[in-house]
Amino acid sequence: MERIDVGILGATGTVGQQFIALLAGHPWFRVSWLAASERSAGKRYGDLAWRLPSPLPADVARLEVAPLDAFDKAPSLVFSALDSSVAGEAETTFASSGRLVVSNARNHRMDPLVPLLIPEVNPDHLSLLDDQRRARGLKGSGGIVTNPNCAAINIAVVLAGLRQFEITRVLVTTLQALSGAGYPGVASLDALGNVIPYIGGGEEEKVETETRKLLGTYESGAVRNAPFTVSATTTRVPVADGHTAVMSVELAKKPSLEEVAAALAAFTSEPQQRHLPLAPNPPIVVHAAQDRPQPRLDVQHGRGMTVHVGRIRSCPILGYKLVALGHNVVRGAAGAALLNAELIVARQRSGADAHPHRNLETVPAVGEVQTHQA
Amino acid sequence: MERIDVGILGATGTVGQQFIALLAGHPWFRVSWLAASERSAGKRYGDLAWRLPSPLPADVARLEVAPLDAFDKAPSLVFSALDSSVAGEAETTFASSGRLVVSNARNHRMDPLVPLLIPEVNPDHLSLLDDQRRARGLKGSGGIVTNPNCAAINIAVVLAGLRQFEITRVLVTTLQALSGAGYPGVASLDALGNVIPYIGGGEEEKVETETRKLLGTYESGAVRNAPFTVSATTTRVPVADGHTAVMSVELAKKPSLEEVAAALAAFTSEPQQRHLPLAPNPPIVVHAAQDRPQPRLDVQHGRGMTVHVGRIRSCPILGYKLVALGHNVVRGAAGAALLNAELIVARQRSGADAHPHRNLETVPAVGEVQTHQA
Amino acid sequence: MERIDVGILGATGTVGQQFIALLAGHPWFRVSWLAASERSAGKRYGDLAWRLPSPLPADVARLEVAPLDAFDKAPSLVFSALDSSVAGEAETTFASSGRLVVSNARNHRMDPLVPLLIPEVNPDHLSLLDDQRRARGLKGSGGIVTNPNCAAINIAVVLAGLRQFEITRVLVTTLQALSGAGYPGVASLDALGNVIPYIGGGEEEKVETETRKLLGTYESGAVRNAPFTVSATTTRVPVADGHTAVMSVELAKKPSLEEVAAALAAFTSEPQQRHLPLAPNPPIVVHAAQDRPQPRLDVQHGRGMTVHVGRIRSCPILGYKLVALGHNVVRGAAGAALLNAELIVARQRSGADAHPHRNLETVPAVGEVQTHQA
Amino acid sequence: MERIDVGILGATGTVGQQFIALLAGHPWFRVSWLAASERSAGKRYGDLAWRLPSPLPADVARLEVAPLDAFDKAPSLVFSALDSSVAGEAETTFASSGRLVVSNARNHRMDPLVPLLIPEVNPDHLSLLDDQRRARGLKGSGGIVTNPNCAAINIAVVLAGLRQFEITRVLVTTLQALSGAGYPGVASLDALGNVIPYIGGGEEEKVETETRKLLGTYESGAVRNAPFTVSATTTRVPVADGHTAVMSVELAKKPSLEEVAAALAAFTSEPQQRHLPLAPNPPIVVHAAQDRPQPRLDVQHGRGMTVHVGRIRSCPILGYKLVALGHNVVRGAAGAALLNAELIVARQRSGADAHPHRNLETVPAVGEVQTHQA
Repeated sequence: MERIDVGILGATGTVGQQFIALLAGHPWFRVSWLAASERSAGKRYGDLAWRLPSPLPADVARLEVAPLDAFDKAPSLVFSALDSSVAGEAETTFASSGRLVVSNARNHRMDPLVPLLIPEVNPDHLSLLDDQRRARGLKGSGGIVTNPNCAAINIAVVLAGLRQFEITRVLVTTLQALSGAGYPGVASLDALGNVIPYIGGGEEEKVETETRKLLGTYESGAVRNAPFTVSATTTRVPVADGHTAVMSVELAKKPSLEEVAAALAAFTSEPQQRHLPLAPNPPIVVHAAQDRPQPRLDVQHGRGMTVHVGRIRSCPILGYKLVALGHNVVRGAAGAALLNAELIVARQRSGADAHPHRNLETVPAVGEVQTHQA
Repeated sequence: MERIDVGILGATGTVGQQFIALLAGHPWFRVSWLAASERSAGKRYGDLAWRLPSPLPADVARLEVAPLDAFDKAPSLVFSALDSSVAGEAETTFASSGRLVVSNARNHRMDPLVPLLIPEVNPDHLSLLDDQRRARGLKGSGGIVTNPNCAAINIAVVLAGLRQFEITRVLVTTLQALSGAGYPGVASLDALGNVIPYIGGGEEEKVETETRKLLGTYESGAVRNAPFTVSATTTRVPVADGHTAVMSVELAKKPSLEEVAAALAAFTSEPQQRHLPLAPNPPIVVHAAQDRPQPRLDVQHGRGMTVHVGRIRSCPILGYKLVALGHNVVRGAAGAALLNAELIVARQRSGADAHPHRNLETVPAVGEVQTHQA
Repeated sequence: MERIDVGILGATGTVGQQFIALLAGHPWFRVSWLAASERSAGKRYGDLAWRLPSPLPADVARLEVAPLDAFDKAPSLVFSALDSSVAGEAETTFASSGRLVVSNARNHRMDPLVPLLIPEVNPDHLSLLDDQRRARGLKGSGGIVTNPNCAAINIAVVLAGLRQFEITRVLVTTLQALSGAGYPGVASLDALGNVIPYIGGGEEEKVETETRKLLGTYESGAVRNAPFTVSATTTRVPVADGHTAVMSVELAKKPSLEEVAAALAAFTSEPQQRHLPLAPNPPIVVHAAQDRPQPRLDVQHGRGMTVHVGRIRSCPILGYKLVALGHNVVRGAAGAALLNAELIVARQRSGADAHPHRNLETVPAVGEVQTHQA
Repeated sequence: MERIDVGILGATGTVGQQFIALLAGHPWFRVSWLAASERSAGKRYGDLAWRLPSPLPADVARLEVAPLDAFDKAPSLVFSALDSSVAGEAETTFASSGRLVVSNARNHRMDPLVPLLIPEVNPDHLSLLDDQRRARGLKGSGGIVTNPNCAAINIAVVLAGLRQFEITRVLVTTLQALSGAGYPGVASLDALGNVIPYIGGGEEEKVETETRKLLGTYESGAVRNAPFTVSATTTRVPVADGHTAVMSVELAKKPSLEEVAAALAAFTSEPQQRHLPLAPNPPIVVHAAQDRPQPRLDVQHGRGMTVHVGRIRSCPILGYKLVALGHNVVRGAAGAALLNAELIVARQRSGADAHPHRNLETVPAVGEVQTHQA
């Protein structure tokens, strides 16, 4: 099977580099095009600072970084790791030019016609992509698909595992890793031996609102938010990778603690059924040891895509307490977008495309277009 | 004014050393006697490892460490920083021998006849000391007074500031410092760049139960627990000193956020009115900057006795959210016990002793007995 | 090819666990037996605390931990990760019972009949094993082979790359990782945000003496120490894995800086030529970027077996300066011993055994004995 | 005694804030004027971010920040904490306008007419200030006095204590704190659990050259560099405050180790003799415990002005080894400049002015000018 050419917008940042690391040796995708801001455009990617422990693939090192306005040179599928200060306009431009933008940026997440997608949580929301294309007259593969905020994603996966018990209220405190702030991000003098009880950019609001869209219901071209209430406090702790979420949850059906643990451990979804390359299996690992999950020991599990749950116990106020953990740059950012792209391509290839109204002749599939370019 | 001789049980641990540091130059107390476990007994204190940045006072360095069973040599007032594995029995023995034990250990905290005391929160609970003495036939200054767990104390001070609004429910997640586990405590490989989502020794239960006793009501020889519900998750983070508590609180009287902030900032109590040497004034500092309080910047304020509150805002579930911070070894341990002792001595000296039924002739005041020994 | 059964002495410590992790899926070896101190003996290994991010292999988890005196049950090849307090006697006992002990412990390193071996540095020293067997009448595979201290090993590999220029003096300051102290090791309160300018257990002396034995010359049954002088200061820094060594070196032949860099980059040895499974290739990576090597970015390279060198420049005092880095638990401990075992087995299997005087009938090869047991 | 008005150039950075903290309650100086770059100019200082644990003094909080070109409003004595990108020109302008600039910036340090001053090391070099004034026709208090780089200063103080033994060679490796890079400085992802083996801005060259000027000889209007050789490697470690220096020293007079320790412990100089307010006494503390000095335990000693030495022992290559430690922002920056100013003022006031050729009528003393303005 030929690999599909993909591009990366914002290739030099923390998430952009993680895209490259995850795509190294990917069975379906091949990085053939990179774009970044003025400062890096025109340079050879291998001459820029690479800040990940895993090696920079030689074929990517050779690529020249394109400017963000070179959308006409981009392959049909582009991942966006752009900063929110530029992502809004740039992603719209790429989508209008017929590119499928699978984005990690926050700008379009709450757009009613843009899927806010976690393949394990709400794969049916992908239908919004067709609604988006039709409503906005996007040609070719054009469109935008987003993944949620790095703190919201772990919480949403856990809630998806509990959905059957009818969630009514969720109170969450996060202990978030430094890599969530990008690079250079948090100053070391603020981070070392310290807790910062606030994360800028509307982090708490994102957790509260994105979670409800993610767990919402797709119906005739729109997503209705889930009816539960979320209250979030987000803090920064001196951890490199891995957002911890301390959660209290109210469940209308009042399952036993054993039922909660069993439901989370048994949770599975379309990415696992389709054996998507990056899909963790199981998506949620439930820990029995009461001092787990821990970032240092657990966050790399499942190539960083596993969501971990531990300390399931009673909450005298909301009924259920637990601690969740996920890799914020993988499961919460680059891996999230990559899994979104895998789902889109897998559906197209399998013919099990959930878009019956889509005109495949005028709107070529991502894979087809890409391999022509390869 | 002559200074009162005091002893320290468990003088070699983290809290024991903090007692010595806080008592250096204390206007009322003078460290004249130290006791510790077998391993250190018989040694000169200055020959043991001193692990605090502040210097070891020369007069304390010269003291020889007594064994824990040498209670007959101890002054009338002893502070206990003993480990809970030995504190229970040892403190009972010292109390029976006529010593007033002002303890940081957990063993006797929930004893119905032992005051669990924070001078700003429940000074009237000190009356239990007389009930204890009578019920148990303790002679002289004999008795046990305790301070709460290092995580519970900050929370209780904040709740004391909110008591007027009728607290009904409290949901709290703590991010606790490494010094809370003593020395050597947490292994560095577990601490560095990590979060441990669990603290042993019943930490969460302590927060949930001690808080209710602290805010409870003293009536005719007994404390009735406060009627609110507390749900706690306690975690360990790589911070040296300073426990952060992320709190959601339900208040029956539904004050505005401004009223909550004003009440906390205006909160004051007996230690401030009596100008106790270690009393922070104000006891609670309310921060307006949204990224405060932070351990690195705030924990040393007020000699480590100040409780900090920030991020006061609405909680869609319980009504009010805030972040609290306090120095766990000072406000939460050694300083807590020291302030308890200051309150006891100040009441005796002022004649404003709240113990009308106490027979001062048969139960000499701590200060009197001590200065005879000096 | 059948895999050889191997045992691990001291299987529960930091280095013991790293042996298990490195042996997972090893093409030649299979962990079939584990031993540890009283405290763990008799337990299922999977029930003990596993503290590595990589998963504990299921087949090892099922093994029961044997006591240290059960040498008669051990396979012919055992790796020793024992603490030095027990390693001396235990390893002698295992060797006397016909087991080949490939040890990371320090006890026998300076024994004139025990090879202190780094396969890239002094593979010819392995001949001492035969001298040892004959002199001590060891039967079967019996014998002890050691690898150097975790700080000495990186330094020795670098010096091996410079040997051709005639080393006369070496002055080194190390910045060593916390994992070098084992578990629980350094207290977090001592480690966090701190430098400890001393490492106990004779660390500096080990660097100074082991380096000279490693670079020494094997001649007729004995190793003559290398004639250069080493001066070491060893410090502990808050890094999880990776010992950094800041080195100044005097070279009699006065090569140019380019010649030094080229020699280090081109350095290769028997493990690379034999394609040993764990041999890094190249063994030394020379970095051009002046802010490298760094533990966070480089230490996992080559499965943790690569030695990194950067900042090659002139020293106004000794002539040459550079910074070296290696993974202390892999290259400096478990991986070192494993590579030693690979070298021994590879030589036996290839027939290129460097022990012409060895009686193969009375001293069966490790591999043969082991596979009989498998 | 009236306090002298002082100004601070670069008042918003790490060193600028430390100046304000150290000057709080200073018996001789009073902060009356602040200047900073465009970004902060015009703002009330109390409205800018204060990043030190010690409180911002209320009277400084009220000051408005002046732009850097408002030199005509500055008091006669200004401390400079400017970044080297702007310090060169700005300090020259202030000096030309009759202000005495006591600077921490590197720009003028190696100027042959500018004193590079540590009051304990080379107080006689202050004579260069008069040479400077005459040569450059500076009026009033005009002139520039500098203190060395934060890494060089600890080393130079130690070498001053050893000067009597005739220093010939010094090989040093530093482990430098994060605050040495200012704010925001090092990114937390680079700092956490890592060592960066390189510090930009010519750090190693500064240590090598400034040390020799500091220990040099003032003779007839010029400083002749000390004749010893220095070789430095400077690294960054995850410590907040406190530069550690691992030193090997060659001493021609070959004292015993006891003589070295005694000389360092007995070292004293003009600041101690004059009882300057910020002078540590003794300037060097020699530690007997082999695991000291440590940043966490020792760096705050003597208000951060003490230099610590430990681990004095033989070096098989250069003769003597030791570990030194000092607070990089206090002893190594703001405190260094402040002590320089104290020395200047004390000499003037005592009449023991070492500038016999100075025309006091045309060049008014700093103190006189300042108090007129006050």
